[in-house]
Amino acid sequence: MPSGGRVLVASNRGPVEFYRDAEGRLAAKRGGGGLVTALTSAMTGTGGVWIAAALTREDREQAAEGRIDVAVGGADYRLRYLDFPPAMFDRAYNDISNRVLWFVHHNLWDVPRAPTFDERFRRSWAAYRKVNGTFAAALDEEAGPSSAVPRFLVQDYHLCLVPALLRSRRPDARIVHFMHIPFAGRSYLRILPHDVREEMLAGMLGADVVGFHHRAWADNFLSCCTLLRDAEVDAARSEVKWLGRRVKVGVYPISIDPVALRTQAADPAVARARRRLERWRDGRAMILRVDRADLSKNILRGFLAFEAFLRRTPRWRERIFFLALLQSSRGEIGEYRQYLRECLRAAGGINASFGTPRWQPVRVVVGDHFPTVLAAYQMYDVLLVNPVFDGMNLVAKEGPFLNELDGVLILSENAGASAELGVGAVVVNPFDVARTTDAIRLALAMSPEERAERARRLQEAVGATSVHEWVAQQLEDLRPAKRTSNAASGMA
Amino acid sequence: MPSGGRVLVASNRGPVEFYRDAEGRLAAKRGGGGLVTALTSAMTGTGGVWIAAALTREDREQAAEGRIDVAVGGADYRLRYLDFPPAMFDRAYNDISNRVLWFVHHNLWDVPRAPTFDERFRRSWAAYRKVNGTFAAALDEEAGPSSAVPRFLVQDYHLCLVPALLRSRRPDARIVHFMHIPFAGRSYLRILPHDVREEMLAGMLGADVVGFHHRAWADNFLSCCTLLRDAEVDAARSEVKWLGRRVKVGVYPISIDPVALRTQAADPAVARARRRLERWRDGRAMILRVDRADLSKNILRGFLAFEAFLRRTPRWRERIFFLALLQSSRGEIGEYRQYLRECLRAAGGINASFGTPRWQPVRVVVGDHFPTVLAAYQMYDVLLVNPVFDGMNLVAKEGPFLNELDGVLILSENAGASAELGVGAVVVNPFDVARTTDAIRLALAMSPEERAERARRLQEAVGATSVHEWVAQQLEDLRPAKRTSNAASGMA
Repeated sequence: MPSGGRVLVASNRGPVEFYRDAEGRLAAKRGGGGLVTALTSAMTGTGGVWIAAALTREDREQAAEGRIDVAVGGADYRLRYLDFPPAMFDRAYNDISNRVLWFVHHNLWDVPRAPTFDERFRRSWAAYRKVNGTFAAALDEEAGPSSAVPRFLVQDYHLCLVPALLRSRRPDARIVHFMHIPFAGRSYLRILPHDVREEMLAGMLGADVVGFHHRAWADNFLSCCTLLRDAEVDAARSEVKWLGRRVKVGVYPISIDPVALRTQAADPAVARARRRLERWRDGRAMILRVDRADLSKNILRGFLAFEAFLRRTPRWRERIFFLALLQSSRGEIGEYRQYLRECLRAAGGINASFGTPRWQPVRVVVGDHFPTVLAAYQMYDVLLVNPVFDGMNLVAKEGPFLNELDGVLILSENAGASAELGVGAVVVNPFDVARTTDAIRLALAMSPEERAERARRLQEAVGATSVHEWVAQQLEDLRPAKRTSNAASGMA
Repeated sequence: MPSGGRVLVASNRGPVEFYRDAEGRLAAKRGGGGLVTALTSAMTGTGGVWIAAALTREDREQAAEGRIDVAVGGADYRLRYLDFPPAMFDRAYNDISNRVLWFVHHNLWDVPRAPTFDERFRRSWAAYRKVNGTFAAALDEEAGPSSAVPRFLVQDYHLCLVPALLRSRRPDARIVHFMHIPFAGRSYLRILPHDVREEMLAGMLGADVVGFHHRAWADNFLSCCTLLRDAEVDAARSEVKWLGRRVKVGVYPISIDPVALRTQAADPAVARARRRLERWRDGRAMILRVDRADLSKNILRGFLAFEAFLRRTPRWRERIFFLALLQSSRGEIGEYRQYLRECLRAAGGINASFGTPRWQPVRVVVGDHFPTVLAAYQMYDVLLVNPVFDGMNLVAKEGPFLNELDGVLILSENAGASAELGVGAVVVNPFDVARTTDAIRLALAMSPEERAERARRLQEAVGATSVHEWVAQQLEDLRPAKRTSNAASGMA
């Protein structure tokens, strides 16, 4: 699709998952999600390469065999896994990416007590730098001595240093760095040690384009760049002048892959899951949440709002069912295990207070069964997506896309998706439990006409952007001399 | 001193403390600190009035007697106490000012769990609005139908709504609102409910001048004002256009009152306290911290840094003494009681791990005895001031001003004072325990020449500004047609 040289992608997690089939043979399964679809299509036909960390034993076996040619469903690119020493990768991935960078960009710390940056942190930061350096070296090597200038699409907070490290190897490289999560405000970013925050910002500014899902995160990044003495921030143009280059800070909201989602939703496993959920629901109204069990997802306050709803609206008791599908996440991190325990305790408390012999108000399923998620999407009356902060949140797009009951979306104003979905969702401040309770009441009292109208607007908003545009616009913005007219539309 | 009409001050806490003397008679004692000195001198000779909430039983007895003429030490103004129903004041002061506004501006929440805004919060916010309204009405009333336009100096986060409420009563009023604490970044401010954060910002923008101690807090405020649809923020001029007016956002770092401090330090009680502290110290090097036991003061990480220092530098064991003078604070708030317990436990842990029969490494004194603080200022080798965030922090100015041993100041980069004191202090990131440990080592290893040079620079920096300039500059900036030359210097 795109013209202008090879496209190379780097991400922590690869686009393909290897597993052992029933006969013990190594098999590959494409990762779901719009991101993989978009990046795959961008690479295809360019001699593209995707570089990722080997995360499983099976990945590592593949890594040992060298590059892998991926040619499934029209895709055509090579995949290369990087195999890191486990201790080094654990430090980079758990200590830095997930315990420091994830926390700082989502405002998750209990600041009077955490974080504390100690000598262990310094060793972990060195490991993060090393992992990033290995990615940069691999990208450089795979790009080779190409005549056309290669284009690099570097994904997310795991790889913040890659752009600058790659630029030092290839001054002429064309690089996008995309952050799929929020970006910290300037005061909060100052929690990071001086040299670390500067290295991170300078790492990202090694790119030509730094991308975010929402204007607020881009604005925060611009504001944070003023912490770098030599950066010149032009907020009006959304640019940073840095080391003689202009870095564009762009907003590219990602969408879903409608074709893949429809296909997956048509799977018999989804119909089976749906029958099970219908039994659980037993004719009641259904509130759904679907989340990784993450500190940023605000599961606790969701339960608090539901509890207040039951307390204040007795007529709804026994007539409503809250289904929480939680994907267990980051069990290596103590804060996550603790948070999941608190969520389960909160749900248990509601069931103990309000449950009757015939009715269990809340059901929490901790697991990772996508057919059940798809079935639940089809049949909710209310979808609660209330993260404290969230780069985009694709549940808020997938749910309305598949829902068949004109279900109402309650959406956090701090999810990136709120920019597009505000037209149809009931938007709430995620900390405002009283207003979230009101939103549940409002959603359940809404007329069928209003539900239908809102559902239509949500579907329209979800359909208005495509994952292909998402990546095409980034590649377009990479061109040194930008065309000024509607160049991107021809590529969509 | 200032010309141009009466000066009226509003603050939560009044400038005078009433107490019963040994014979049971009501007596008055002037509050210490540069703020009272500055505001008192600004009011004196203008027919000034100071309005404050009655906080103690003695205050309330005074409130019942009406206005009080204050004429001590050259001061000349009237004092009026406002007596609020205790439940209302508790909601405004504890629930809103100290549990919500203090937390949001210092980034203190454990965001996955707190805050939750519920119906109780709404009632408390209504109480805060009411208290602010009472202040505004009293200011209006006290200003009376004066011919010269009165000038109002409204203090701090307890009274954020007063400027707008006062402006609606007196459109021609000249109002300064001064925030003595930091101001939240834009993302973090968004934790507050939509209407509440807008009401707060609009409340402050009722002033002609909004003042902060540090550029970073002023910049955060400007950035937060972009959340108001109708505000036009001119960051370069540090102005906000709002409802047809231009609001200046200014930086006025406050200082100490050197005369009062010298006088207090010469008190015999200080000499007695010093003898006691010298016995405790017993010839050892002394690290000092002086703080309210507040979540923002970072007492825990200070102990962690000291613990790491003792672990890594065994030669300093038994040769050093850490004195923590903590003023107990906000005991009505569970988080504060919990934090103080954790601090005491951390200190106890260090004493248990490293203490010997001859030596207790840490001594924590919880109390409120200013002579002991002044004595400790005179005799520290190292003063640790490492708040996570702090509007200004006057300990960092008082300590170096009184110290007699060329003591080294270790100062958080997130304290407002760091802008002026960075020239002489060892500046640290308060979350970086490893670097704080390094700073302790560095301070203790410093040559006498370097200590003397740094102490000299600190004294110079503290002396470079005066509390009188602080208030004079604000009043100067209140003038509708500003003189452009060095108008303020003539008033200092």
